[in-house]
Amino acid sequence: MEKYELIVIGTGPAGEKAAVKAAYFGHRVAIIEKEPNYGGAGVNTGTLPSKTLKETALYLSGKYTKGLYGVERDIERDASVEDFLYRKNYVVTTESEEVRKNLLRHNVDIYHGIASFAGLHEVHIKGPKEETLYGDYILIATGSYPVHPPNIPFDHHRVHDSDTILEITRFPQSIAVLGAGVIGVEYSTIFSTMGTKVFLINRTEEILSFIDQEIVQFFLQKMQEDQIDLLFNRSVESIKVPKSDQEKIDVILSPSEVLHVDMFLFAAGRNGNTKNLKLDKIGIDVSKRETIFVNKQYQTVIPHIYAVGDVIGFPALASTSMDQGRVAVAHIFGTKDIEEIARVLPYGIYSVPEISTAGMSEEEAKKTGVSYCTGVAHHPDMPRGKIMGAKEGILKIVFTREDLIIRGVHVVGHLATELIHHGVGLIENKKTLMDIIGKVYNYPTYHDLYKYAAYDGLGNLSGHKVKV
Amino acid sequence: MEKYELIVIGTGPAGEKAAVKAAYFGHRVAIIEKEPNYGGAGVNTGTLPSKTLKETALYLSGKYTKGLYGVERDIERDASVEDFLYRKNYVVTTESEEVRKNLLRHNVDIYHGIASFAGLHEVHIKGPKEETLYGDYILIATGSYPVHPPNIPFDHHRVHDSDTILEITRFPQSIAVLGAGVIGVEYSTIFSTMGTKVFLINRTEEILSFIDQEIVQFFLQKMQEDQIDLLFNRSVESIKVPKSDQEKIDVILSPSEVLHVDMFLFAAGRNGNTKNLKLDKIGIDVSKRETIFVNKQYQTVIPHIYAVGDVIGFPALASTSMDQGRVAVAHIFGTKDIEEIARVLPYGIYSVPEISTAGMSEEEAKKTGVSYCTGVAHHPDMPRGKIMGAKEGILKIVFTREDLIIRGVHVVGHLATELIHHGVGLIENKKTLMDIIGKVYNYPTYHDLYKYAAYDGLGNLSGHKVKV
Repeated sequence: MEKYELIVIGTGPAGEKAAVKAAYFGHRVAIIEKEPNYGGAGVNTGTLPSKTLKETALYLSGKYTKGLYGVERDIERDASVEDFLYRKNYVVTTESEEVRKNLLRHNVDIYHGIASFAGLHEVHIKGPKEETLYGDYILIATGSYPVHPPNIPFDHHRVHDSDTILEITRFPQSIAVLGAGVIGVEYSTIFSTMGTKVFLINRTEEILSFIDQEIVQFFLQKMQEDQIDLLFNRSVESIKVPKSDQEKIDVILSPSEVLHVDMFLFAAGRNGNTKNLKLDKIGIDVSKRETIFVNKQYQTVIPHIYAVGDVIGFPALASTSMDQGRVAVAHIFGTKDIEEIARVLPYGIYSVPEISTAGMSEEEAKKTGVSYCTGVAHHPDMPRGKIMGAKEGILKIVFTREDLIIRGVHVVGHLATELIHHGVGLIENKKTLMDIIGKVYNYPTYHDLYKYAAYDGLGNLSGHKVKV
Repeated sequence: MEKYELIVIGTGPAGEKAAVKAAYFGHRVAIIEKEPNYGGAGVNTGTLPSKTLKETALYLSGKYTKGLYGVERDIERDASVEDFLYRKNYVVTTESEEVRKNLLRHNVDIYHGIASFAGLHEVHIKGPKEETLYGDYILIATGSYPVHPPNIPFDHHRVHDSDTILEITRFPQSIAVLGAGVIGVEYSTIFSTMGTKVFLINRTEEILSFIDQEIVQFFLQKMQEDQIDLLFNRSVESIKVPKSDQEKIDVILSPSEVLHVDMFLFAAGRNGNTKNLKLDKIGIDVSKRETIFVNKQYQTVIPHIYAVGDVIGFPALASTSMDQGRVAVAHIFGTKDIEEIARVLPYGIYSVPEISTAGMSEEEAKKTGVSYCTGVAHHPDMPRGKIMGAKEGILKIVFTREDLIIRGVHVVGHLATELIHHGVGLIENKKTLMDIIGKVYNYPTYHDLYKYAAYDGLGNLSGHKVKV
């Protein structure tokens, strides 16, 4: 039986970064992948594909550049679904290969097959050949899969989940999306950008609850302006799929309403990939969503077995999953390169427009009872926004009144997922409104939003509205 | 005679921000503008116009999006010069109005005319009416103007300076640009992007000496790949402009060479706007470039007279000029909102590709004798770069060996002027390579460049190349 210091199960963002980091620090590492492609959902079905489709949609629709010359100069193009998927396929292929090369470059041993626990330190692999490995430590990074509720007749042709939506062979004229979580809003806005009529269905009216709700309201309004129908406080009773593709699908909602649409996307839940692992054998419980419980160091109840990434649930973003993998390895091998103190993490949603957030939302500020205030600035009001013809966008700062320290930054609009990193630094380093005002930003850039929001915050404090 | 606590001469970025800030803090302020439009070079002839033209050139040429689908999907458009100037004119008009509104909102008194010193505290205005104002403090923010050497036959039709180039009525097929400073490289790459054949002439071969030279070399190579002819170590002897626009201009270089081009742009120098001020009357000297000497608080030799912006010379960027205006006012009125300690300033060049830089270059590190090392990452290698089809781009980190503290960040490529701000924060807060490695960046974003460059830096230290 081959012996390893660390066995990693899964080559997605969490598993890859963990395996490579452990190997970099000189440890003997094996990694197991059940799919022919490397990179998990991060590369193949989730993060990169949907982000690439978003950019493609913006390109093909001419949306970013529309503002620059006004409507009469729109680029009219008949985009085919091949156009739409071309770049996505290119990125997926090259990045999957990058993952393989990165693992090999660090001398991580790669195994193919389905992993399951044969003992507390033994992992069995059922693949081209069957074998069992011994690991001092084992890291579970098996990811998640889309739930298939019995009332949804998935056919992967017109009724899709968040994996198979990537395999469409034609553009729907209309689509109903169930679930207004990260995946649901990303695909809703991507399809809407491509000219598809979108109905977004959600069980509750509060969505993206981990994000500042003023920002969410701004985003919802934007979706409505883009003609997306928001059907909140509703659930899907059943779906009737006619035999002919020419006929519309009936989506029967509760309270009673019927949508006639061309396609349906189920985006209301992904569960942890734990079924194959035989966790019951070693006494690790899973949640209702089949996710694994871990502590702050990503340890399961068995101290030498760790779990990271989508398989442990929220936030299930590639960026945080990679980080979890690195933190777990730091803890296992005492590499001490990542402090385990609470850090300020950015969250990014690659919708149209983008959303990104870090630190305290206004709701959290209320809950904790601190005396806070806010300041906002809008993309179209910035000189940079005028140059780009920006139509919308907002950056919001949450700060505490007594010391003016920045506690949270929240952005919707162009470059949101890039701009947030400056905010993360401000929060981490306990910078104040006055620190922002004292800063020099390249002019014109969207980073000016920070300065304008800081002045707006000062104005809100004093009741004296200014732009200095 | 009207009395003011502060008289500001010029409504460009430096003057506007100074006037508005002083007024915001409750002081009585007058501002004097000699042009009908507000905003100086920042709005009317320099910063915003050239940045808008850059984005327009990228849009019309399809250059940003070229990478996304490969060459066969280029957008071919016959762009007219009206197309090219449309957005620029829109931005200039709206921003000039923004400056006026901002001044009025803060109750700054606006005067029109040419300002000159009538005494140590008296400023005379020659405008629609003549009057003299009294100021406790006076701030000179009169900007700069393009030098006109006698051997260049400016006609503002085919032989332009950096102001009149904005008034072209047709695209040149070819252009010779003299001066590879910020303005020269910006216009060279903008014209090249629009399909104009560009010859860039410079007296020396070292250009942009305030920027890390590895970054400059990367940029020069990129210009050459884009078919820009770099004619360095040369000067212009004379220029012959034929009567007919159909015939080419002869540009006679030394050492002897003749260029036949359609247009000529002189971008080899701007001097301070000090002629009208009658500074000799109050004993303020100017340099050969007609700029005013100031100390670190932007005071001239007369303690109550300050000077900021292009009129004091380098770096002559809108962003730093605004900051100088604010720092001067902080010093005058003791507002204490801006510490006067040396801060880390970003510099941005809006060429194609963009350049931005902050902190120590490799040359400075060598000069100071610290033991340093560097790390780089490239836009096309980032998942974000693959999504966008990025063809080039580099981010370089300079750090000290003993403590791994980041001392400088230098970027060429897409979003350089935005990305630099994260680097400024890292430098200011004395963050290390390990701090970067411990950070979470939204995935995929160009901010990943920082993480990859940090790993590259670690690899350079250890001789063990990695990507973790």
